[in-house]
Amino acid sequence: MDLATLIGLVGALGMVFTSILMGGDIGMFYNAPSIMIVFGGTIMVVLMKFPLNIMLSSFGVAAKAFVYKSQKPSEIIEQSIKLANVARKEGLLGLEGVEVKNEFLSNGIQLVVDGNDPVLIQKMLSKEISLSIERNEIGVSIFKAMGDVAPAMGMIGTLIGLVQMMSNMSDPSSIGPAMAVALLTTFYGAIFANTFALPIADKLAHRSNEERLNKSMILESISAIQEGLNPRMIEGLLNAYLSDKDKYSSNNKAA
Amino acid sequence: MDLATLIGLVGALGMVFTSILMGGDIGMFYNAPSIMIVFGGTIMVVLMKFPLNIMLSSFGVAAKAFVYKSQKPSEIIEQSIKLANVARKEGLLGLEGVEVKNEFLSNGIQLVVDGNDPVLIQKMLSKEISLSIERNEIGVSIFKAMGDVAPAMGMIGTLIGLVQMMSNMSDPSSIGPAMAVALLTTFYGAIFANTFALPIADKLAHRSNEERLNKSMILESISAIQEGLNPRMIEGLLNAYLSDKDKYSSNNKAA
Amino acid sequence: MDLATLIGLVGALGMVFTSILMGGDIGMFYNAPSIMIVFGGTIMVVLMKFPLNIMLSSFGVAAKAFVYKSQKPSEIIEQSIKLANVARKEGLLGLEGVEVKNEFLSNGIQLVVDGNDPVLIQKMLSKEISLSIERNEIGVSIFKAMGDVAPAMGMIGTLIGLVQMMSNMSDPSSIGPAMAVALLTTFYGAIFANTFALPIADKLAHRSNEERLNKSMILESISAIQEGLNPRMIEGLLNAYLSDKDKYSSNNKAA
Amino acid sequence: MDLATLIGLVGALGMVFTSILMGGDIGMFYNAPSIMIVFGGTIMVVLMKFPLNIMLSSFGVAAKAFVYKSQKPSEIIEQSIKLANVARKEGLLGLEGVEVKNEFLSNGIQLVVDGNDPVLIQKMLSKEISLSIERNEIGVSIFKAMGDVAPAMGMIGTLIGLVQMMSNMSDPSSIGPAMAVALLTTFYGAIFANTFALPIADKLAHRSNEERLNKSMILESISAIQEGLNPRMIEGLLNAYLSDKDKYSSNNKAA
Amino acid sequence: MDLATLIGLVGALGMVFTSILMGGDIGMFYNAPSIMIVFGGTIMVVLMKFPLNIMLSSFGVAAKAFVYKSQKPSEIIEQSIKLANVARKEGLLGLEGVEVKNEFLSNGIQLVVDGNDPVLIQKMLSKEISLSIERNEIGVSIFKAMGDVAPAMGMIGTLIGLVQMMSNMSDPSSIGPAMAVALLTTFYGAIFANTFALPIADKLAHRSNEERLNKSMILESISAIQEGLNPRMIEGLLNAYLSDKDKYSSNNKAA
Repeated sequence: MDLATLIGLVGALGMVFTSILMGGDIGMFYNAPSIMIVFGGTIMVVLMKFPLNIMLSSFGVAAKAFVYKSQKPSEIIEQSIKLANVARKEGLLGLEGVEVKNEFLSNGIQLVVDGNDPVLIQKMLSKEISLSIERNEIGVSIFKAMGDVAPAMGMIGTLIGLVQMMSNMSDPSSIGPAMAVALLTTFYGAIFANTFALPIADKLAHRSNEERLNKSMILESISAIQEGLNPRMIEGLLNAYLSDKDKYSSNNKAA
Repeated sequence: MDLATLIGLVGALGMVFTSILMGGDIGMFYNAPSIMIVFGGTIMVVLMKFPLNIMLSSFGVAAKAFVYKSQKPSEIIEQSIKLANVARKEGLLGLEGVEVKNEFLSNGIQLVVDGNDPVLIQKMLSKEISLSIERNEIGVSIFKAMGDVAPAMGMIGTLIGLVQMMSNMSDPSSIGPAMAVALLTTFYGAIFANTFALPIADKLAHRSNEERLNKSMILESISAIQEGLNPRMIEGLLNAYLSDKDKYSSNNKAA
Repeated sequence: MDLATLIGLVGALGMVFTSILMGGDIGMFYNAPSIMIVFGGTIMVVLMKFPLNIMLSSFGVAAKAFVYKSQKPSEIIEQSIKLANVARKEGLLGLEGVEVKNEFLSNGIQLVVDGNDPVLIQKMLSKEISLSIERNEIGVSIFKAMGDVAPAMGMIGTLIGLVQMMSNMSDPSSIGPAMAVALLTTFYGAIFANTFALPIADKLAHRSNEERLNKSMILESISAIQEGLNPRMIEGLLNAYLSDKDKYSSNNKAA
Repeated sequence: MDLATLIGLVGALGMVFTSILMGGDIGMFYNAPSIMIVFGGTIMVVLMKFPLNIMLSSFGVAAKAFVYKSQKPSEIIEQSIKLANVARKEGLLGLEGVEVKNEFLSNGIQLVVDGNDPVLIQKMLSKEISLSIERNEIGVSIFKAMGDVAPAMGMIGTLIGLVQMMSNMSDPSSIGPAMAVALLTTFYGAIFANTFALPIADKLAHRSNEERLNKSMILESISAIQEGLNPRMIEGLLNAYLSDKDKYSSNNKAA
Repeated sequence: MDLATLIGLVGALGMVFTSILMGGDIGMFYNAPSIMIVFGGTIMVVLMKFPLNIMLSSFGVAAKAFVYKSQKPSEIIEQSIKLANVARKEGLLGLEGVEVKNEFLSNGIQLVVDGNDPVLIQKMLSKEISLSIERNEIGVSIFKAMGDVAPAMGMIGTLIGLVQMMSNMSDPSSIGPAMAVALLTTFYGAIFANTFALPIADKLAHRSNEERLNKSMILESISAIQEGLNPRMIEGLLNAYLSDKDKYSSNNKAA
């Protein structure tokens, strides 16, 4: 569960609402046509930009920004060292029996157990990494697109309001409220883009990057296990992926 | 038929019109010179940016955003496995008789049947992929250019309206309507860019990306067939191109 | 002669003028100091950005956007096949006598006839391509710079007008016309950037890209001729550069 | 201690405050809800964009812009030459006893002393460089994100103020002060982004670049020492990293 | 001496001043606090972005945009041919005595005379090129940063002026002049960015690019001389760096 996304979303909207309530009635910030043109219009335009099936999957993708949790890199190192020890004692076939939680690592070990050529395994797994990153980026780009389109739809709505107001200025006292309503679409567009769509896109991009780093570590670890590298060497190689204070040390865990 | 593009376009424009109608008369949103300067001006400027023959083909390219449908990757995997099985049983020459729907795959198989060198085939097909992507990107860039130019022409039209209004402010009651008319060009530019030109550009870019992925799969499959790779291995290699839930499994189809 | 550039420029300016005339007197759109600050200022600032000799050559470069015509790729394929046939019948030395219109192809063939090493020829011609593209891009960047600077100078001029107007608001009736004049520099900057400088930059970039593709085709063709490749194979290799409907077929021309 | 960051921050804020005080009372520039929406809102939105643990470490990262000092490249050259001399006299094992302050260099020398393969060492250290740069860039991107979000939150706050003001224009004398308050959020957003978040991001990026250059020098020096290169040659190789006036000359120091 | 930078700067500022003088008194364009916040604030913020020693050297770097003159490529070709002729007649050691003006070429030739390995020389000189380009880019980025920060400080100053004006609108006749003063900071920021900082950055980038091309030519020429290539061949190789009308021909100079 990624609390930061939830806390941030609730906190940002909370501050906006508090700020509105401190200035008076919240009712003046509600306008049905403005909501329709910003939210409905944004969905429709983003629908034009992406295929239907990708759009439909975007809700699930957004959820990922709230609940997804990448595996901790130190766990991957620990598991790799365990696998390397098994491989040195029992040979590559001995890896068959070891239980591996991470699916990507498990698939890779299976390819090793099946006796495939190291170069082919590297090629297959590298491609799987780059293609899964490409799929993640489509999820990111849907929310980036929402963040681009919402302010534009907000501006279109404001222009509609301004044209209607200016065509009909017989009653000066109505000018202020009419302009307030016209500005609401710009406000909705800015809120939707800046406190929802763009942060979700950035969080998803961050998750995708974590996934890429984890999978690169696994790729390297599989290659090292297949080459029969010293487990201590593998620890050194994989620790390069961690910052100094997160470095994994087998001494703390296994004797 | 890509319904998402059509639904999105109709939906976005529908919401804009509904929003206009809810605020009053739609007549105040029609202004002939503004239409001329935004739509005509945009076409003219884009004509300056691209050669004539490319511009003329852009209508056909736009249509592609509405009707084009990429082949499903699982079909390509299925066909590749069928071809690999034939190649293993009857040799590469046996591929001659197999009917292949996908034109790019069919051309590639023909090169294999003709006994060309694998390296040469890879080189020819890779170049065909990268050059067809380059041609697609010109189509994308025409609509991107429209999306850039239309708001600029809108601003130019609004400036013309403002200068005319301000030079002649003897009648205060005419200021409002004159300003409304001046804003219309900005409105037209924003509508044209955000609900037509830019989404079409993005959809075309998306289609081009799908085409690139499909052709890369085919390139890989042809290479594997020529090397005489195990059909099950080819299935594994090509499945890397699919997300987990779309993975093709030959077990479900062929025994 | 590239008619699209001329039609586009005349058309875009025509629409702007028509739109002005429909709204009244064109005289209110003329202001000498605004013209000076936008056009003169832009030239001066661009002069700061680029060396003098490059600036002086920019008029010739701009002309290229109106009159330059790239050679048709099918002509290059035709000529390459002719050369390949000669090379197969009479040897590489036989290429000496063949008349070649395209200067880049002709220089390349001369290097082949002189008996240079294929690797050296590839290196020399590749570098010539990449360096001529780099020179073209300087031409493109001059017009891009004009397109960036002109709106900025327009804004500076408008700020000057606004400061002068606001410092001296004793006569309310003069405010409107003073503001109209202040807006004119913004208008000039937008017109110059959007209907001249940026489209010329894009057209030049497009021409440069066509030149790069043509020269890459020629590079490939020279390499293939020197290797003694089958003319039919060369046709296949070079046709990858053409879209499906433009493919060259030797059957239609030579028996 | 990086004085430039501190001087710049104090100086920029000092000029802003001086400018405010010259115009009158500073009290009119304080507004609690505006502060909440800009500073609180920015933190919340940036929290959505990044994982919680990275956000928490960002204060430490910001401190780095004030206190971090990269090692001087000439010191690295000096130490490398010393190490190279030792390696030539006593062999690679002789490096064991040499005290090395720089941690990255010290780790690398240890790998050499342990008798690892040069290719493996290069691979491990290169990866450590690229991954530590990637981690630095996350720190940079947090402050870049703050610099993007703060003006957006400022605009949202100003829109709230404008809507409230315009909905309630019965008292004309309150319009001015209400608008002044509305503008304050835009002001806070601009100040926070331009005089704190973006400059910190740029300084961190600069530090990261210095670190990359230093570590590349060390990588090269370790490789050269392991190959047994002449110390004078190493001096030449590493001096390429320095500008002409900073070149290290061993003649000035060691005989 | 690069006249274009000086002419452009004087010309652009001259047009701005002329335009101001045509509209009336220049005194209304002078405001001390605005100057402080734009120029002082920009310097302070840029100081935060870069290390102190780099900032201090930026004045010298700016001077380079006015006085630096790259060596003409044809001179480099001429000198390379002379060196190649000497090398063919007297061997590589004969190069010792030849006087070479260009420092980079002279250093390279010294490496050749010292009998270093061609691969090592290429590696050292390539790195020196890429690292000197990197140093140049820091100079460019200081002026780019000034061009980004100045308009932002201008906006901050204008916001300060607007807030002060609106908080205190009791005297309507003071509104105009107060707003004029508020706009001055935006004006100063736009002038400083567009007619000084950004053009200097672009000119420095251009100079850096010329330096890169010249040094690449020299690198190639040194490599060719060391390989003992025919001087006529070297002329051909290096001429690729020149546009058609600038091509160097040894026939015009040496017999």
